[in-house]
Amino acid sequence: MPQELYFEDFYVGQTMNSIGSAKVTAEEIKEFGQKYDPQPFHLDEAAGENSFFKGLAASGWLTAAIVMRLRVQSITVAGGMIGAGVEEMRWTLPVRPGDTIRTEIEVLGVRQSSSRADYGIVRTRTLAFNQRNEVVLRSTVNFLAPVRPKA
Amino acid sequence: MPQELYFEDFYVGQTMNSIGSAKVTAEEIKEFGQKYDPQPFHLDEAAGENSFFKGLAASGWLTAAIVMRLRVQSITVAGGMIGAGVEEMRWTLPVRPGDTIRTEIEVLGVRQSSSRADYGIVRTRTLAFNQRNEVVLRSTVNFLAPVRPKA
Repeated sequence: MPQELYFEDFYVGQTMNSIGSAKVTAEEIKEFGQKYDPQPFHLDEAAGENSFFKGLAASGWLTAAIVMRLRVQSITVAGGMIGAGVEEMRWTLPVRPGDTIRTEIEVLGVRQSSSRADYGIVRTRTLAFNQRNEVVLRSTVNFLAPVRPKA
Repeated sequence: MPQELYFEDFYVGQTMNSIGSAKVTAEEIKEFGQKYDPQPFHLDEAAGENSFFKGLAASGWLTAAIVMRLRVQSITVAGGMIGAGVEEMRWTLPVRPGDTIRTEIEVLGVRQSSSRADYGIVRTRTLAFNQRNEVVLRSTVNFLAPVRPKA
């Protein structure tokens, strides 16, 4: 079991790579599209061909969800990773059926929470890459991490 | 069928409410959690009770995905709504089993794309409310809309 991390374990410049990667299938793209982003280019290959994306493409929110899973797998925060907001998120290239996604996370900042003395806020930059090492998503996300309990 | 909107149809101050709302179930929270955000407070009521959230809570990325569906249903962009990035997204309250989510969208800005003459960029503020009219998510998101073809 990976070590549980507390606020004090994070530092600026720290990097964390995803453990393994996530393969994205046409089936997952269509299933997510039907549920959450029902637009032709997320549902059907032929409709995708005639669209902005020139082919079936993953909803950006599916990519974001996959990135969240990779993040949870690679950073084991004590008590869980509590999102404290997205400062920026960009979808820089479409994610296609068969793509394999991995992430690299860098800590940009750490600060004590002003509203909760028992938590700190960790500011991170995430880059998500496909199998050609092209960036498909980049984001700046803050999460909470608990202050280490006094011994 | 709703009218298809082109870039010229958007203007600062325009508001669009979601058509209906989305009820969030414990089943959907757990299913999404298992797939994309496998942390105890998204998977299990008892584990949720002993967590930051004091109960089962939806992954913020599930809330974001539901908000995307409401957005797609309420704004019919010609050719589809192409995300051009998130400027900010905050989860202001947990989303719980049984909550019903609706959205209000306001156009903050419109500008021609500098890289693609056939598209404009629409900057929007989204507020997502629960059934008590409490804001559970707010975001600033940009999307592309095609310039209306010449007659």
